Amino acid sequence: MFRTANVLSIAFCLVACRCAFADEGMVPISELGRLPLAEKGLQLTAKEIFNPGQISLVDGICRVNGCTGSFVSSNGLIITNHHCAFDAIQKASTSQNDLLTNGFIANTFTDEVPASNFTVRITEGYKDVSEQVLSVVTDKMTFLERTQAIDKRRKEIELGTEKENKGLRVEVAEMFAGKTYGLFLYTYLKDIRLVFAPPVSVGAFGGEVDNWEWPRHTGDFSFMRAYTAPDGTSAEYSLDNVPYHPKRVIRVAPQGANEEDAVFLLGYPGRTVRQKTASFMKYEQDVRLPAIVELYAWQINEMDKAGAADRSVAIKHASRTKSLANVEKRSRGQLLGLRRVDIVATREKAEAELQSFIRSDASRREKYGALLKDIASVYDDMTKLGPLEIHLKEFKSACRALSFGFTIYDAVVERAKEDLERETPYMNRNMDLTVQQLKLDVADWHSPTDAIMLAGMLERLSTIPDARDITPLSSLLNDRSTFQKRAESLIGATRLGDVKFAEECLKKTPAELALTSDPLLKLMIELYPTYKSLRDKDKERDGRLGPLYGTLMEAKQAFEPTQFVPDANATLRMTYGRVRGYSPADAMQKTPVSTLKGVIEKTTGIEPFITPKAVMDRYLAKDFGPFVHPKLGQVPVAILYNTDTTGGNSGSPVFNAKGELVGVNFDRTFEATINDFAWNESYSRSIGVDIRYVLWITGIVYEAKHLLKEMGL
Amino acid sequence: MFRTANVLSIAFCLVACRCAFADEGMVPISELGRLPLAEKGLQLTAKEIFNPGQISLVDGICRVNGCTGSFVSSNGLIITNHHCAFDAIQKASTSQNDLLTNGFIANTFTDEVPASNFTVRITEGYKDVSEQVLSVVTDKMTFLERTQAIDKRRKEIELGTEKENKGLRVEVAEMFAGKTYGLFLYTYLKDIRLVFAPPVSVGAFGGEVDNWEWPRHTGDFSFMRAYTAPDGTSAEYSLDNVPYHPKRVIRVAPQGANEEDAVFLLGYPGRTVRQKTASFMKYEQDVRLPAIVELYAWQINEMDKAGAADRSVAIKHASRTKSLANVEKRSRGQLLGLRRVDIVATREKAEAELQSFIRSDASRREKYGALLKDIASVYDDMTKLGPLEIHLKEFKSACRALSFGFTIYDAVVERAKEDLERETPYMNRNMDLTVQQLKLDVADWHSPTDAIMLAGMLERLSTIPDARDITPLSSLLNDRSTFQKRAESLIGATRLGDVKFAEECLKKTPAELALTSDPLLKLMIELYPTYKSLRDKDKERDGRLGPLYGTLMEAKQAFEPTQFVPDANATLRMTYGRVRGYSPADAMQKTPVSTLKGVIEKTTGIEPFITPKAVMDRYLAKDFGPFVHPKLGQVPVAILYNTDTTGGNSGSPVFNAKGELVGVNFDRTFEATINDFAWNESYSRSIGVDIRYVLWITGIVYEAKHLLKEMGL
Repeated sequence: MFRTANVLSIAFCLVACRCAFADEGMVPISELGRLPLAEKGLQLTAKEIFNPGQISLVDGICRVNGCTGSFVSSNGLIITNHHCAFDAIQKASTSQNDLLTNGFIANTFTDEVPASNFTVRITEGYKDVSEQVLSVVTDKMTFLERTQAIDKRRKEIELGTEKENKGLRVEVAEMFAGKTYGLFLYTYLKDIRLVFAPPVSVGAFGGEVDNWEWPRHTGDFSFMRAYTAPDGTSAEYSLDNVPYHPKRVIRVAPQGANEEDAVFLLGYPGRTVRQKTASFMKYEQDVRLPAIVELYAWQINEMDKAGAADRSVAIKHASRTKSLANVEKRSRGQLLGLRRVDIVATREKAEAELQSFIRSDASRREKYGALLKDIASVYDDMTKLGPLEIHLKEFKSACRALSFGFTIYDAVVERAKEDLERETPYMNRNMDLTVQQLKLDVADWHSPTDAIMLAGMLERLSTIPDARDITPLSSLLNDRSTFQKRAESLIGATRLGDVKFAEECLKKTPAELALTSDPLLKLMIELYPTYKSLRDKDKERDGRLGPLYGTLMEAKQAFEPTQFVPDANATLRMTYGRVRGYSPADAMQKTPVSTLKGVIEKTTGIEPFITPKAVMDRYLAKDFGPFVHPKLGQVPVAILYNTDTTGGNSGSPVFNAKGELVGVNFDRTFEATINDFAWNESYSRSIGVDIRYVLWITGIVYEAKHLLKEMGL
Repeated sequence: MFRTANVLSIAFCLVACRCAFADEGMVPISELGRLPLAEKGLQLTAKEIFNPGQISLVDGICRVNGCTGSFVSSNGLIITNHHCAFDAIQKASTSQNDLLTNGFIANTFTDEVPASNFTVRITEGYKDVSEQVLSVVTDKMTFLERTQAIDKRRKEIELGTEKENKGLRVEVAEMFAGKTYGLFLYTYLKDIRLVFAPPVSVGAFGGEVDNWEWPRHTGDFSFMRAYTAPDGTSAEYSLDNVPYHPKRVIRVAPQGANEEDAVFLLGYPGRTVRQKTASFMKYEQDVRLPAIVELYAWQINEMDKAGAADRSVAIKHASRTKSLANVEKRSRGQLLGLRRVDIVATREKAEAELQSFIRSDASRREKYGALLKDIASVYDDMTKLGPLEIHLKEFKSACRALSFGFTIYDAVVERAKEDLERETPYMNRNMDLTVQQLKLDVADWHSPTDAIMLAGMLERLSTIPDARDITPLSSLLNDRSTFQKRAESLIGATRLGDVKFAEECLKKTPAELALTSDPLLKLMIELYPTYKSLRDKDKERDGRLGPLYGTLMEAKQAFEPTQFVPDANATLRMTYGRVRGYSPADAMQKTPVSTLKGVIEKTTGIEPFITPKAVMDRYLAKDFGPFVHPKLGQVPVAILYNTDTTGGNSGSPVFNAKGELVGVNFDRTFEATINDFAWNESYSRSIGVDIRYVLWITGIVYEAKHLLKEMGL
């Protein structure tokens, strides 16, 4: 068995061992021993949380697609967010039985609904593979070659280790950019089922209006269950499968946590960019984020209009709208935060100090002198090409049929290569998932909306001079008055929104596909070299930035040894803090526990502020059971805490000092979206649904008492 | 001399003497002796605040047009709100020297600018005249006759008393509807001058966006000065005049007041309707307030559009826009409050209990049995006729030229009557003021806007079937497609926006005016009988409601003797409380002191969030002088307190426990707009500009140190 204590304990020492972790930080799980847990109010030792080779708290958590989940029963019952299960609820809905609107309760195992396309990932082991990965890099390589070599080496290590560890999946993750790589061993469970979801009016109460906001009144939780083959191994959905038995079950604390109580989270925070330079921040602030906000706000608006007239269209758009709106508002928050906190200027100042330090010594000057300038030159290039690159990428994302066409042709082209040479999604081990996702996306296709998106993107591209130099676009873009008509005719003629056609195409060779009569697929194939060169360009930049950032880290450490917290990279991290409010503005204080009374106050009967009759009835009857806040005299709905989280922490368990579940993390405050760039105690706040609301909604309002019983309550 | 102690001390005993005042209540000044002042944290005795025949704190305050002011120097220096002096600042502005934008400082007496149309009223004495007034009422009178008789009697008493008290003005005010009347003796000072106004970007920082909101960052204060003839008597503006010497000067406390400090206010709260029935509240909620919100929001929007293109048009519209916007937002707040607190239902329940009490006794049944039904029948009638009546009234208000035409014709008609028989504005003692106001209004006329208003009102009236039955309207309203053209042609042809024409018209008789060739004046004259009958209808309703409410008060007192606080009626009242925050919503707390830091946070450089360079410079230089909040380390800008105020309390001094000035009241919170209907400690909060901000802006930012010196600082 791969999993060994000695390998795990040496992880991250290159950098992390030299740091004293501040309260900031999504701390790598291997570094818990360095944290002042008791001083921070935790009653668990580091070994009780994570103990390689032994069973510890981390064995009770898992990754549910892009989210985090907790096993809350020995029969594989998982609690995660409603928005994490949203796709599963949406796909299982029909216009006859709209599970989003009505919610869902499985009263027995057999009532549970398969959540197609969901996987649950369990971390089984870890080792540092930095040396193995970087051994393939030579000084003579171009930057593109460097990235390609590292990618290939990572894949080799993954496939090799997987062969040695049958049934496990191996992933090599970059830890510090260009410097350190970690190998993770995972079990992927593939038979995941929906167990309980409150109506969307509870699970997404407040919708996009309240998203990223506090006070929050959203019951953003759901229950799923993981199944395995009867022998306990991972298996696709089958009626013969049995519930998964996790190594550790997370205990639920029905009394919850109150103001100033210590809490901690475990989870898989996706990506932060705190180690990046001022030049990167400036690119984000001036180029990328404003473009994303414009592009997404427009698409959301168009999908909303289309959905307003027809509920079945709204259901098709629901998942994509939700996801775009989430990013759009987060990006707005980040833009605001970048400007308000003036992060670019702050970082420029810090870098000027670093540069003085570098200049003050000849050997440092030689080694690091050009570093910041070299990094900046990459972002300068991205800034210059930004409008074109961002809009070209969005062209094949906003227009869904173009996106399907790209995936199909890309898959067919890549499939012709050796497995290790392929882009990751098309490697043999990933191809099934990629095709499955494509089919699910195709099923949500709505052609009138897609024609609007196509026309809108032509409109936007036509304002970017360089876009007209791209051969297949030049004729399309030369007459604005034709955009709508051309878009309608292309969308009207394409069969890319047809699953059968997609399946047929996937069987062909690139040469065969090139003969297609489908006009949109034809356009995509003509554009393919452009997209391939965009992808190569990104790799080339990564290759260039990787070693530069690696060296920058060295220089920073020489300058100031205690500053670093590794950026999030979707690997398992811990963060701790307290249930605590904050002041978003002068003379305003937000307190950290919201209540059912607030749900009722916000309820207007108009989306997204509808409250189901069942909730209203229990509220009016004051039927709160034991789930009452001791001081507020109300059922608490959500809690706020000053831990350090980002996307991927959705669904993360919020633990009390004893490691018992008191909430399920689901969001940050609007002010805290800037968290990804820079953490600050005064505004970095995360939001979780209070376990008392989970239990009240599940057990009292919807009477799924069997689930409370299953959780040992 | 009229002013006697014994008369004043018996005031309001009919009702007030039977009450223990709650914290709710704008307490009549004669009743201070009944308040637990020491228990509430005040260090002054009732006699130090108000001591008839002696000089006390109330002698330091005055009424400035519709606002309250405080004398802060022995040379008649008055502090009031910026918005109270707004008209004076606006009228003194030109496109060359825009005092609204630039602010104004008079460095010497001779620099001060006359505030035409401003008067300062000083209360000199009071007596109860209920018996004298009601002696003219007989059982045989119709309701209209009853109102007319009371009105005439009030005027007789006023004129008679004025004759006995040369130089003073006498006003008889209804205290409890239909029951009690008080006679007030006033000095009116007519030579008022502008001394200091900060730029509108300070004085109205946050503008309509922040109006009625907390946290607030508005420096809503200004200084004016009252002048008299050299002999100390009231006189029109003259270079020979000298500063007025108030009997009492209010001492300024530069240390301000902080959270939980006791404060109290003196002022002239205008009107509350807390004694009215559920049927009235329902009329307000369902009929009047929604109509006002629609009509005002539309007019504001049109004036904003017109002003956006041309600053000189914006200046013309500024005062009217500000006033409509203020009422529009207040009305929205009241609508929200009526619905949220469900005041109609609460009051219906209370009235049902009262009705049970009445029914349970035969003599009560006979006396009061039909009372609530009779009152309701008046509001039922107003509800039925509401849309027509409200839109007819607004017709001659939205279209300014029609309003001028009405005033002119009304003045001419009324002037033909005996003085005592006239409508109040046209009595000899008031005619000058009425004509002066008319001329000022005419000076702000902008014909393109007026054409839009006229067309918009025709549009609205055309949707009300009964409007077409009014002869002069029937032909105007029969073809929607012509409204814009007809409006433009009427406005294009009228001379009512010309001061000279208005003056000529005012010299004519009704018969002469009837021959006018001015098409809009002609229309107004044709409509005059309709407006006259609307006025009579209102009087008839007042006459009907007066004795009904008088009797209702008796019935309520029999049922529950301690509930009553007299509704505000623009007479001098006191209210006390504490500097205190509140919770506007679940998990939200607003703290009661806003600071300069918040001004900077809100500053966007876009109206209404512009901060003058002078303020920004002093902020960046941390040049705060002694005006720093001890805990917050910032200049406090505004304070929040739980006293009971309403419109008319604008400019009211906020006193500390010792009766020293710590702020100038200028607004309520949005939630507190419902205050006029029902008071509640949880949401009734008033807002004042902090004296520390007043002194910092005046003395440090704009260096008017001579004013601080004049205030004894």
